[in-house]
Amino acid sequence: MKKQTIKEILEDYKKVLHHDITVYGWVRTFRANRFIALNDGSTINNLQIVVDFENFDEEIISKISTAASVKIVGEVVESQGAGQAVEILAKKITVLGDNFTEERDKTILQPKKHSLETLRDQAHLRFRTNLFGAVFRVRHAVSFAIHSFFNQNQFFYINTPVITGADAEGAGEMFGVTNFDLNNIPRDEQGDIDFSQDFFGKKTNLTVSGQLEGETAAMGLGRIYTFGPTFRAENSNTTRHLAEFWMIEPEVAFNNLEDNIDLAEDFLKYVIQYVLDHCKDDLDFLDKRFAEEQKSKPEKERAKEGLIEKLENVVAKRFKRVSYTEAIEILLNSKENKKGKFQYPVENWGTDLQSEHERYLVEKHFESPVVLFDYPKEIKAFYMKLNDDGKTVAAMDVLFPGIGEIIGGSEREARLDVLKQKMADMHVDEHELWWYMDTRKFGSVPHAGFGLGLERLVLFVTGMTNIRDVIPFPRTPKNAEF
Amino acid sequence: MKKQTIKEILEDYKKVLHHDITVYGWVRTFRANRFIALNDGSTINNLQIVVDFENFDEEIISKISTAASVKIVGEVVESQGAGQAVEILAKKITVLGDNFTEERDKTILQPKKHSLETLRDQAHLRFRTNLFGAVFRVRHAVSFAIHSFFNQNQFFYINTPVITGADAEGAGEMFGVTNFDLNNIPRDEQGDIDFSQDFFGKKTNLTVSGQLEGETAAMGLGRIYTFGPTFRAENSNTTRHLAEFWMIEPEVAFNNLEDNIDLAEDFLKYVIQYVLDHCKDDLDFLDKRFAEEQKSKPEKERAKEGLIEKLENVVAKRFKRVSYTEAIEILLNSKENKKGKFQYPVENWGTDLQSEHERYLVEKHFESPVVLFDYPKEIKAFYMKLNDDGKTVAAMDVLFPGIGEIIGGSEREARLDVLKQKMADMHVDEHELWWYMDTRKFGSVPHAGFGLGLERLVLFVTGMTNIRDVIPFPRTPKNAEF
Repeated sequence: MKKQTIKEILEDYKKVLHHDITVYGWVRTFRANRFIALNDGSTINNLQIVVDFENFDEEIISKISTAASVKIVGEVVESQGAGQAVEILAKKITVLGDNFTEERDKTILQPKKHSLETLRDQAHLRFRTNLFGAVFRVRHAVSFAIHSFFNQNQFFYINTPVITGADAEGAGEMFGVTNFDLNNIPRDEQGDIDFSQDFFGKKTNLTVSGQLEGETAAMGLGRIYTFGPTFRAENSNTTRHLAEFWMIEPEVAFNNLEDNIDLAEDFLKYVIQYVLDHCKDDLDFLDKRFAEEQKSKPEKERAKEGLIEKLENVVAKRFKRVSYTEAIEILLNSKENKKGKFQYPVENWGTDLQSEHERYLVEKHFESPVVLFDYPKEIKAFYMKLNDDGKTVAAMDVLFPGIGEIIGGSEREARLDVLKQKMADMHVDEHELWWYMDTRKFGSVPHAGFGLGLERLVLFVTGMTNIRDVIPFPRTPKNAEF
Repeated sequence: MKKQTIKEILEDYKKVLHHDITVYGWVRTFRANRFIALNDGSTINNLQIVVDFENFDEEIISKISTAASVKIVGEVVESQGAGQAVEILAKKITVLGDNFTEERDKTILQPKKHSLETLRDQAHLRFRTNLFGAVFRVRHAVSFAIHSFFNQNQFFYINTPVITGADAEGAGEMFGVTNFDLNNIPRDEQGDIDFSQDFFGKKTNLTVSGQLEGETAAMGLGRIYTFGPTFRAENSNTTRHLAEFWMIEPEVAFNNLEDNIDLAEDFLKYVIQYVLDHCKDDLDFLDKRFAEEQKSKPEKERAKEGLIEKLENVVAKRFKRVSYTEAIEILLNSKENKKGKFQYPVENWGTDLQSEHERYLVEKHFESPVVLFDYPKEIKAFYMKLNDDGKTVAAMDVLFPGIGEIIGGSEREARLDVLKQKMADMHVDEHELWWYMDTRKFGSVPHAGFGLGLERLVLFVTGMTNIRDVIPFPRTPKNAEF
């Protein structure tokens, strides 16, 4: 790439000091008809352009306003003002596009504060704001760190299918995929819908997880991971649910539950450390924003740690590993439970944990990320390994402060006979999953894996609170704009 | 990761020589009741395990057969045989899972040669073969190189939506996405399908491209790329079409057509060089296979170059840049055209090029990768920049030997008035794309991007010929198994 970004210019300004350079960007502000704060998206920092208006046509000056795009040739000089090492003395200014100022003033590009809701309605423009620039640069860094971690550890990236033939995992309601003309759906002789005439010759849906296909790949390649979109047709209008979100699912042959927990801990720490190392400017901005947000909250709801502090603590602390059974004991004996402060009281072993219980364990009891393991088999999926006690499965959930479950996984049931029994008990059709059963027939091995929701992790790292604000174009009930 | 992979052991054997180690893997062959060729997926190379059968129970020995999974403890010693530096003298052998030998012999795990068609029908097991191990390790390397290239060049990874509200680009037939019960589709008062009652409150489809959303992101973040699944509901049963495939789409603010061509060339060379550097063993295997395949072809259909030679040449050569107009001249004057050897004769300027024409230019005329640019506006999409001649658009296609078009892109039309006129001419609804139009109103800038089909590139790099053999679970008409 021949063009220099503002990030490069600011980070390596000694190379260009006292030289003429060309820069491109969008005007963030134009102060006193003299100082342009120019941004090109490469960094949250603006480059200051000093414009001596006597040297330029009035027409050009009049077109310079917030959101306008410009190309500027000028000399890099040491800055007189505070806050930046260098600035550009403009010699030539080209306004690249019209700016439709009146229309602009009806959008979020108008230079004033807008609510997150308004920004969401104009998701196509919010990339231009400091906040969403920072969020999406951090999302990139998180994604790249994920690929880097797995690549370094000899995992192979596998693309599992988005369109699938069955709701095998039973993980939730699925979207249908069809090529039928909905006004004219073919019927068979019995009057039933004739899916054999649809594109794929059968009923198809959007995937809820790539795990089962991922397992088949791990049975040949050893260590694999997926990184792709997954879907839930659940009518949940909350700050934590999306109909379309991105999942990362590693699967490792020969790993047991403990290896799996080690992997999850190493993985999360690597990714968070990577962001701390590579996104300092964006994190500083998000850290300040987070602190401001906390101020507006009632004191008892405020986070105990700042954003960056929280990230550093997660990397520094060894995650606390606690069995489900121990966790239930802790919860049963907690003041909160005894005093009826939980919305869902904990009554007995076997109950599923709610978000409030997870957060109690992480934020109050242990004050540390927590890994829960060995859950009752009844509340977990069919493919999880049955432990020797016959009551629990080798499941694990990683719980994070402020966010609850960030990773869920398990050692898989590798024994064909046990798996068959579990599937029968849980009404999962083994014939439909003939290919999955094959992996337990031919050279079956212990193996384990987990799923991470990318947006959950980006929420955690950025300190944002609504999941719609960490994915470029959120898909939620009644909303598929853009 | 605490466990050592076979790749690590073989590459760094001096570290473990004369030590006892533990290895895990699947038996590829068990020769003379003495030599296990063990593979764990980390590399195409097997680790030789020497079994002195007098030291082991007959029962264990009897369970060791092709596809069985084992855990072996043994000493690393210098190998007596050719082909490997070290081998393991087994001290303890654990067979991890049953192997159902009779059933196995009905699958592709049976130790004999199978056709690619048969392997495709058992896509869940083909990860275990040398060929597909190599293909999917190379696919991983290609994917990681793509992320690395963009990360190094300050691009941000953006996830554009998979479920979209409109067939905006008109790039092809789309799959519908719905949460309706197809037996009971709600109707409005006019008797039309009432999409307002569907999950998203409107008619939705699977995306054919993330470009338009990607452009909005580039208008804030500067340099972005997508890497995600895209879909075509076209009933094409060929070796080059998939209903679900992965696309990479970079988009760069302030880039013109020439910058875009430079980017495409740098990008392809980086990725191919990365694979040459990181996948030597797999490429050697694929290179031999490619050479074998060529032998079975009639002489005039054989490739001029070996696989690795072809990759090295692409990296070494400067891509030939030729305007569409020049290309048409060359084709019109070619012997092939004059002698009627093209299935589609080239008759005049304005005609769209067929695969045979592209391959003539690349393989016969220039003997080099070719970038064609400045195509007639009528045969290209609405969003491409109209050139000053009023007849052509700033489009570009990168053509590769053996494969034809591997990248298609353009500088985008950044001028609102010209864009509107083009959309009107081509019957694209600008109101539905209100958000796209906004990018041309507020600080519009020259920008350019392109699309790469991941599977096309993996075909090129691996020398495979059917696109179904370079994606784990292909989706094609009447096929959504697994």
